[in-house]
Amino acid sequence: MKVELKAGERIDELQRNGYQIIQNENGFCFGMDAVLLSGFAKVKRGENALDLGTGTGIIPILLEAKTEGRHFTGLEIQETSADMAQRSVCLNDLNEKVEIIRGDIKEATDFFGKASFDVVTSNPPYMTGQHGLVNPDMPKAVARHEILCTLEDVIGQASALLKENGRFYMVHRPFRLAEIMVTMSRYRLEPKRMKLVYPFVDKEPNMVLIEGLKGGRPRVTVEKPLIVYEKPGVYTSEIYDIYGY
Amino acid sequence: MKVELKAGERIDELQRNGYQIIQNENGFCFGMDAVLLSGFAKVKRGENALDLGTGTGIIPILLEAKTEGRHFTGLEIQETSADMAQRSVCLNDLNEKVEIIRGDIKEATDFFGKASFDVVTSNPPYMTGQHGLVNPDMPKAVARHEILCTLEDVIGQASALLKENGRFYMVHRPFRLAEIMVTMSRYRLEPKRMKLVYPFVDKEPNMVLIEGLKGGRPRVTVEKPLIVYEKPGVYTSEIYDIYGY
Repeated sequence: MKVELKAGERIDELQRNGYQIIQNENGFCFGMDAVLLSGFAKVKRGENALDLGTGTGIIPILLEAKTEGRHFTGLEIQETSADMAQRSVCLNDLNEKVEIIRGDIKEATDFFGKASFDVVTSNPPYMTGQHGLVNPDMPKAVARHEILCTLEDVIGQASALLKENGRFYMVHRPFRLAEIMVTMSRYRLEPKRMKLVYPFVDKEPNMVLIEGLKGGRPRVTVEKPLIVYEKPGVYTSEIYDIYGY
Repeated sequence: MKVELKAGERIDELQRNGYQIIQNENGFCFGMDAVLLSGFAKVKRGENALDLGTGTGIIPILLEAKTEGRHFTGLEIQETSADMAQRSVCLNDLNEKVEIIRGDIKEATDFFGKASFDVVTSNPPYMTGQHGLVNPDMPKAVARHEILCTLEDVIGQASALLKENGRFYMVHRPFRLAEIMVTMSRYRLEPKRMKLVYPFVDKEPNMVLIEGLKGGRPRVTVEKPLIVYEKPGVYTSEIYDIYGY
């Protein structure tokens, strides 16, 4: 389906099913985080998935391409992002499988109802507070800083929205790991699987991928490390696989 | 100082300061876990450190060799282990710097008093319950399974024994990571530093090293991975450094 582009927007290839995505160079463009989360999350045949804070819709669109899930919903509070996401859904003819809803994560359970999804995913803002932000209304700031929602909002809503034994998948920064585990545990999303992403084999990790099971018992599998670069400028084969090249 | 060996005991070299340690091949011999913990833990000049469940005393003896701490105490409940540890202290002429106490971790605060150490270390039993144990009284079983103390006992006592801003260092298995973080946080030992030990770069980690700060604020540094083997049978240079070869 043909869609119109607005000023500053461009169409990028997703290397999956011929899908494309609309982004704005002046806004928040998706990063490797979202792609890795779409590779880490598992949506099984017939399941319904919700992405909290979906931005331009990258995660539901990639999950639709990669999994056999039945339906994918993306919730996004910012109008410009939600609008781009909706046009990307049209661009890929995904209206029957992917729905974009404009709304606030903090009110997600009121909107969708409790225990209404099999899977919830999120690539939430990583940074606490608003340190040094000139304009906290900017779309990039909202995507990166906990201005409109906190880690606890995301985890608390995810837990309420999931069915018992439903699965939560999140990508975040390792420096928040203790808070993440404590908060997930408090909201009965027991951490069951975790993967650290190291840019190089001899560097600190810069991302953590985590899966929680609603109502699960404590026991977490820490997976083999995901190393991004074999050498500067050259991805490892695992990264090429996830990106689909 | 010369000490007597009992049946089944042998003396092993520690590759540090010419120190040696007495172990019994039929008992629990120290593993790489203890050596890595002694490389991960920091004891500063003048500080007093306590090791909970010290076994044959490997950790206080190695920390005495590697750090400028003032005094090191090892607490061990099992008589045969505590006795070997005491003779190893004599063997290395460390009676003025290292003390072995026979006692129960669960009563450690009653014995030493609250807020009495700058640093607490522990290489506790990893396994929950007593699955498949023929004889839960065996020294090896007590060292490996939570028969005489649980993870919560160790963390709770460590927190009580530490001064405010004191540091807790533990080695454990990654599958307990969520419980570890939740329990440390509950006892105000905020996780501040963590390192995963991967046997090979493409395998799941089999150990986690963690530092908690009593009364700290949430923010954890996940360090670069510690890879043990470069190829089968060949340690990486980082492992050789820690072992002191």
